[in-house]
Formats: sequence, C-alpha cells, structure tokens
Amino acid sequence: MFEKNLSVAFLLDFYSNLLDERTRDIMEAYYEDDLSLSEIADGEGISRQGVRHIVKKGEEQLEFFEEKLGLAEHYEELSLAAKKLEGVKATLLEAGGVSDDTITILEEIISTILNKGI
Amino acid sequence: MFEKNLSVAFLLDFYSNLLDERTRDIMEAYYEDDLSLSEIADGEGISRQGVRHIVKKGEEQLEFFEEKLGLAEHYEELSLAAKKLEGVKATLLEAGGVSDDTITILEEIISTILNKGI
Repeated sequence: MFEKNLSVAFLLDFYSNLLDERTRDIMEAYYEDDLSLSEIADGEGISRQGVRHIVKKGEEQLEFFEEKLGLAEHYEELSLAAKKLEGVKATLLEAGGVSDDTITILEEIISTILNKGI
Repeated sequence: MFEKNLSVAFLLDFYSNLLDERTRDIMEAYYEDDLSLSEIADGEGISRQGVRHIVKKGEEQLEFFEEKLGLAEHYEELSLAAKKLEGVKATLLEAGGVSDDTITILEEIISTILNKGI
C-alpha cells in the first residue's frame, strides 16, 4: 500500500525549487493536482512503478532538505507568531484609542510573517 | 585578486547545512573565523589553490541555493517587519494604557521573527 503523505505536500511548498524539473512536475501532479500514479504514468509515458520510484525519491529529498534547513518547522513557529499578533490586534481594537496607522502596520507585519517567501 | 564577499557570510548562515562537511568547514574558517586561504591550506594539508577552489565552489553553491529558495532575501523582509513591530511597541508604550502582557507578547513575536530558524 502506498499512501499519500499529506505533510509531503507542505514540504513541497518550501523545497520544490530544489528538485529537478521532472521530479518536481511529478511530485506536484501527485501531491497538488491529486493525480493517481497511473494517471501520471500515462501522461509521462512511463510505468506506474517508475512514477512510484520518482515520487519515493522526491519524498526522500524533501525530508533531507527539511532535516537540513527546517523551513517547514520554522514556518509553523512563524504562523503561531502571526496568530498571536492577530490576538494583539484584536485586544488593541477592543480597548480602543489605537490609531488606524498602527492597525495597518500590524496587518502588514502579519502578512509578511505568513508569506512563505519562496 | 580574490576578495572576501561579505554577503557570502550571510548566505552561509542559511545554507551551510546543505554543503558537504569539508566545504562547510573551509567556508566557515574563511568567512566566519576570518582565516586566510594560506592558513586554511596549512591546516588542511592542501595547497592554497586547492582551498581557493573549494571556497569558490562553495560560493557558487550558496548562490544557487539563494536563487532557488531566497531565504536570505526573505529574512531581510522579516527583519524589517520586526523593526516595524519594535516601532509599534514604542508607540504603544508612549501612548500608555497597554498591558504588560501585550508588550511581552510583542517581544516574543519579535524574537520569533528574528530567529533564523536553522
């Protein structure tokens, strides 16, 4: 049984640019466009087993990059920081007396934090 | 003439884990510990030209990673966001009436944003 690992799709957000073009195309077809191995095999003109092998290798590469750079894990921390900043914004709005400019700046900062930057 | 490129030291902060061990050691000796090519050559038991070659290759790899992932550029944006958040904190403190908790949360968020995460 070969199940799709959803966290791989998340890693793909960060590291797809480091994969070679063919692996990236196949990984994206499988994880983002949700095509089956057989559908990809038909499109690429290779065997289902060949596609499976490339997906497996791609997953290993993504895990290697995450182990070395930890971007996905770091992004989780940044997302949490953005959430906390949303909380600060809500608190300030509730208390009143804070300028529109300050709120706008907070919103820009939240948006920058949540940008994956890739 | 072979001059040290200071921005390489910055790239090294992000991508050194993707370099092979020997290249990483030599790059760090050159860019972080500020050793000369000759000093590194003596330590490694290879020629000055050999060290130069490894440093050059290492630089190319770092530039490749930055081109593909853009972590250093993204970090500049996050640093700017942290700076703006420092400004918001100062504004709130000056205006008064904001809780210590809110200030503490802002400080934690700033610290998270400035963490390179590697």
